[in-house]
Amino acid sequence: MAKQEDIFKNVISHAKEYGFIFPSSEIYDGLSAVYDYAQNGAELKKNIREYWWKAMVQMHENIVGIDAAILMHPTTWKASGHVDAFNDPLIDNKDSKKRFRADVLIEDYCEKLQQKAQKEIEKARERFGDAFDEAQFVATNGRVVDYLSKKKTILERMAKSLDSGDLEDVKALIEELEIADPDTGSKNWTEVRQFNLMFGTKLGAAAENAMDLYLRPETAQGIFVNFLNVQKTGRMKIPFGIAQTGKAFRNEIVARQFIFRMREFEQMEMQFFVKPGEEMKWYEYWKETRLKWHQSLGLGAENYRFHDHEKLAHYANAAADIEFNFPFGFKELEGIHSRTDFDLKAHEQYSGKKLQYFDTEENKNYVPYVVETSVGLDRMFLAVFSKSLQEETLEDGSTRTVLRLPSVLAPTKAAVLPLVKKDGLPELAREIVEELKWDFNVSYDEKDAVGRRYRRQDALGTPFCITVDHQTLEDQTVTLRHRDTMVQDRVKIADLRGIINAEVSMRNWLLRTK
Amino acid sequence: MAKQEDIFKNVISHAKEYGFIFPSSEIYDGLSAVYDYAQNGAELKKNIREYWWKAMVQMHENIVGIDAAILMHPTTWKASGHVDAFNDPLIDNKDSKKRFRADVLIEDYCEKLQQKAQKEIEKARERFGDAFDEAQFVATNGRVVDYLSKKKTILERMAKSLDSGDLEDVKALIEELEIADPDTGSKNWTEVRQFNLMFGTKLGAAAENAMDLYLRPETAQGIFVNFLNVQKTGRMKIPFGIAQTGKAFRNEIVARQFIFRMREFEQMEMQFFVKPGEEMKWYEYWKETRLKWHQSLGLGAENYRFHDHEKLAHYANAAADIEFNFPFGFKELEGIHSRTDFDLKAHEQYSGKKLQYFDTEENKNYVPYVVETSVGLDRMFLAVFSKSLQEETLEDGSTRTVLRLPSVLAPTKAAVLPLVKKDGLPELAREIVEELKWDFNVSYDEKDAVGRRYRRQDALGTPFCITVDHQTLEDQTVTLRHRDTMVQDRVKIADLRGIINAEVSMRNWLLRTK
Repeated sequence: MAKQEDIFKNVISHAKEYGFIFPSSEIYDGLSAVYDYAQNGAELKKNIREYWWKAMVQMHENIVGIDAAILMHPTTWKASGHVDAFNDPLIDNKDSKKRFRADVLIEDYCEKLQQKAQKEIEKARERFGDAFDEAQFVATNGRVVDYLSKKKTILERMAKSLDSGDLEDVKALIEELEIADPDTGSKNWTEVRQFNLMFGTKLGAAAENAMDLYLRPETAQGIFVNFLNVQKTGRMKIPFGIAQTGKAFRNEIVARQFIFRMREFEQMEMQFFVKPGEEMKWYEYWKETRLKWHQSLGLGAENYRFHDHEKLAHYANAAADIEFNFPFGFKELEGIHSRTDFDLKAHEQYSGKKLQYFDTEENKNYVPYVVETSVGLDRMFLAVFSKSLQEETLEDGSTRTVLRLPSVLAPTKAAVLPLVKKDGLPELAREIVEELKWDFNVSYDEKDAVGRRYRRQDALGTPFCITVDHQTLEDQTVTLRHRDTMVQDRVKIADLRGIINAEVSMRNWLLRTK
Repeated sequence: MAKQEDIFKNVISHAKEYGFIFPSSEIYDGLSAVYDYAQNGAELKKNIREYWWKAMVQMHENIVGIDAAILMHPTTWKASGHVDAFNDPLIDNKDSKKRFRADVLIEDYCEKLQQKAQKEIEKARERFGDAFDEAQFVATNGRVVDYLSKKKTILERMAKSLDSGDLEDVKALIEELEIADPDTGSKNWTEVRQFNLMFGTKLGAAAENAMDLYLRPETAQGIFVNFLNVQKTGRMKIPFGIAQTGKAFRNEIVARQFIFRMREFEQMEMQFFVKPGEEMKWYEYWKETRLKWHQSLGLGAENYRFHDHEKLAHYANAAADIEFNFPFGFKELEGIHSRTDFDLKAHEQYSGKKLQYFDTEENKNYVPYVVETSVGLDRMFLAVFSKSLQEETLEDGSTRTVLRLPSVLAPTKAAVLPLVKKDGLPELAREIVEELKWDFNVSYDEKDAVGRRYRRQDALGTPFCITVDHQTLEDQTVTLRHRDTMVQDRVKIADLRGIINAEVSMRNWLLRTK
């Protein structure tokens, strides 16, 4: 546990020190749960977005991309249910004046029950060794059964109360469990009340005739309201998809874990419109396809797993997460949801417009069903970045920090380094930069000993270092050093472009998603 | 004039019909001055953004890009002057209840004076023919002198009143000039008052402890507050630049002209940090460099001109626009501003943090001066789209609509068309799609006669059509049709990738900006 925390701290400090992520408006002491992507982070984020876009839009003849505005007509959010139901249950501690999510307090309590059960299991495992049968132990050991059944009962009661809007019972539950403010120990709580997570703003000049708007809390609705316009002008035939990347905003009360849960974040979503009754086939298709995309990055298949939802949102008839092994454990990275015709029907109702597809094969109109794939770009960034950051012990006993980013995503593809700052080597190195920059992000570095420069590029995730030395002057060859293996090859300058391209080109990486 | 209006209307309807731009939330009757980029518009916009980014960041060793959040600490906007001075003077007509920008009413009045003068000039030109000396006529003709001097006097008085905050005099001016509501003719006006253009929102859970935030009205400040973090972690040496693309929001009262002035829009900005005293050299450099970038797109050098500002913003010591010949005349497309050290010094003052650069050559600290280049991505879209849309009369007397987009920006690079829907041609065409899709956005179309499909691709701006016919089955060649010339070549399937790449690759287009 301590180790995980250390790893996560290290991720955060590396992200800042090497120009990937800064706290927003840091000179003004930051803005809680908002971050800026710095010079290397902006490139990494852009590359992830592009890799997703190409895999979804360019690769699929029947998927197109759009770019809808953040500001939408407010009735959109009535129809989607966000105005009425996009709430968090909040509770204040009267003594500490601190605010908490009531459901998170209860979940944290249950997490402790789980940990207690886990502890019993581990003790038993040590005692019985190879003979230990975990399933049997969990089913029969009195304490473990008690812990887990209590947990189950509590979570079920909370879910029921939240679903029915019985906030008094949520408070009663907190009091019965004697849950205290984790910082102060006080159990002096206010009532629980619902708080809408959408950011509001006003369109128009004066208070009396301004229009209340929301910053979109998800990009999906921008796709639904445009569904028929896209289908008609693009002459799309079912099944087809509409993809979109863009910012969304949620006024999270408990925003934490760095860029994992931010108030301003970016989504990469695709809504796939299918014939009613065929949604489960496509749901399975997209689960597999999206997992393959993630695994194409080579971060290790063992770091991904599916989590099928037992409890479904009001609009879904099937849902699963692709979870990733973050520094703080397996958490949701992407969601695949079978949303039925809930959204389109709701927009039909609120807009009074038909949102139906005319199926020429069946010769009839219907409202399509939708299978959605939704991945958080910032979470994807955190997944890639945290898993790539590694401390290695080398053969000579020294250590190096290396950011083993998939080369297609690396901010800079190659650094060009003159071995020394004289004898025309810097000039020659700059010529190579000028030659390569038309194809790749390349950098030039002449400061410090070359070994130190290699380490710096390792820490930045640069896949190649190109070193220009005196031999280069004679035979037009350079040293090409590979980040991951530290192997150095002698190659011709004229061959650099081809070698680098083969390793970093999006084309070649996309082929791995097949 | 009428013709210009027709052209503009045509641009707007073509943008909708062919899936480039839809009104936002159209099923709810739209949201004023907000638009969504549809399936082809999203690709065109993305390609413009990428062409800018590569030209600015990838091509320049000393420019890096960042991606700062839309939400920033509110003190940012105190420091930048937006809280106090980012206002429009508004006036209401009491009879029509309509709201106007007071300055725009006065400017429109002056525009009419200008038009009257222009009319006199044109009459005289007709009368005198080749012997007409316009400069002399403007300086000596009584009426023209009157019109232009009146215009000058009015604009100077307005500027003075607005600068000093004398809104009563702005109203007095409107009354003296007897300016009426253009729709109703009523001269019954309210007072003039200032209205801040920033969209506000609240961060946090409850009214009592929420923090008032703004949606950023420009991306530039995200660069300034990150200046020192980027400089230090990126080890940047002056002169260096920080670039950024992203959304900005302005609660415009008079938002009009389609996507030219929207409430939600996207900027592409670069702040170049220089040694104080060297800013004019870099200001000139960036004026030329940015113009070259625009002209590399081949839309016609005559469609661009510089407009040097006479009246400078409070933060600038030099400023110029690159104006483009839009369907409604020459208007600002990009601004190049020498912003001095105004912003960094203001942030130093408000944050209490030093924002200085240590110059190792001069061995001293200073606050750098800044030269900014700022282009509206949506305006750039409108410039490219409107100038590319052309109606041609062909040799046979028929007309065709062709969207002559620069091929590097075209949403789809090639459409693959089986000549007929049988004999294995569709299957072969799809094989070509499968082959090319790893490198380009390609589409497949089998519906309607091939001539009609060509026209459809012309209207979408697709540079190449690839037609698969019976000969293809025999010799593995296809017809490659060029959008602009309509010339058809017979080429080998194996050569398609290379031919298309040579024409559309960003690399080759970037070389034109040299």
